[in-house]
Amino acid sequence: MAQRSLVLFGHGARDPRWAEPFRRLQQLTQAQMPEVSVSLAFLELMEPRLPELVKQLVQDGCSEVTIVPIFFGQGGHVLRDLPVMVDQLRQDYPDVAIRSVAAVGEDAEVLNAIARYCIGSLKA
Amino acid sequence: MAQRSLVLFGHGARDPRWAEPFRRLQQLTQAQMPEVSVSLAFLELMEPRLPELVKQLVQDGCSEVTIVPIFFGQGGHVLRDLPVMVDQLRQDYPDVAIRSVAAVGEDAEVLNAIARYCIGSLKA
Repeated sequence: MAQRSLVLFGHGARDPRWAEPFRRLQQLTQAQMPEVSVSLAFLELMEPRLPELVKQLVQDGCSEVTIVPIFFGQGGHVLRDLPVMVDQLRQDYPDVAIRSVAAVGEDAEVLNAIARYCIGSLKA
Repeated sequence: MAQRSLVLFGHGARDPRWAEPFRRLQQLTQAQMPEVSVSLAFLELMEPRLPELVKQLVQDGCSEVTIVPIFFGQGGHVLRDLPVMVDQLRQDYPDVAIRSVAAVGEDAEVLNAIARYCIGSLKA
């Protein structure tokens, strides 16, 4: 188990097919960073939930956790629910550095890639 | 009004800030395709809903509508709700070519861009 962990945090859904791109993203990211543990966690409807996953990471010796919200928009889940969970995790594991970053939809290159896909869809 | 329309179809959320990247995506896409009308539509919680928007596009003379689901995963919303809406729209507007494509999370380049953002977040 790596000391550093990257957690890809998604909403979750009832249909298991929904998680497929998240699993591909996990594999893609993990392959490029073999020295870091890359995991998925969900807000609701799918397992593991974020608190459970972080508990396991800490038990496995992880000392640094970076949480990336795999959300387009920053609404209530990213701006309210996630900070509450992060604050609780920091209280629970004071010796672990836990931080979250902006949602992926805030990244210009991600939006550029989505725009290219949209344009290509029209022309196809 | 362009004869061709691209509709960026998102989930919608209570927090208006959630829609910000969708608006940036719309502007980014529109700027690269001035000859096509690029619009946003939402499944729930935000306006316009997809049926309302398509009604307006058709009234404005649009003859071809391509709907791109701005969703990572293809779960119930993309695999069940959207096809039902598209079928209904095709019945309502039989002279308009209406189609939807795979969700943006199915695109390898979109996932690559998200992976780069995740990796960059860790190193920052």
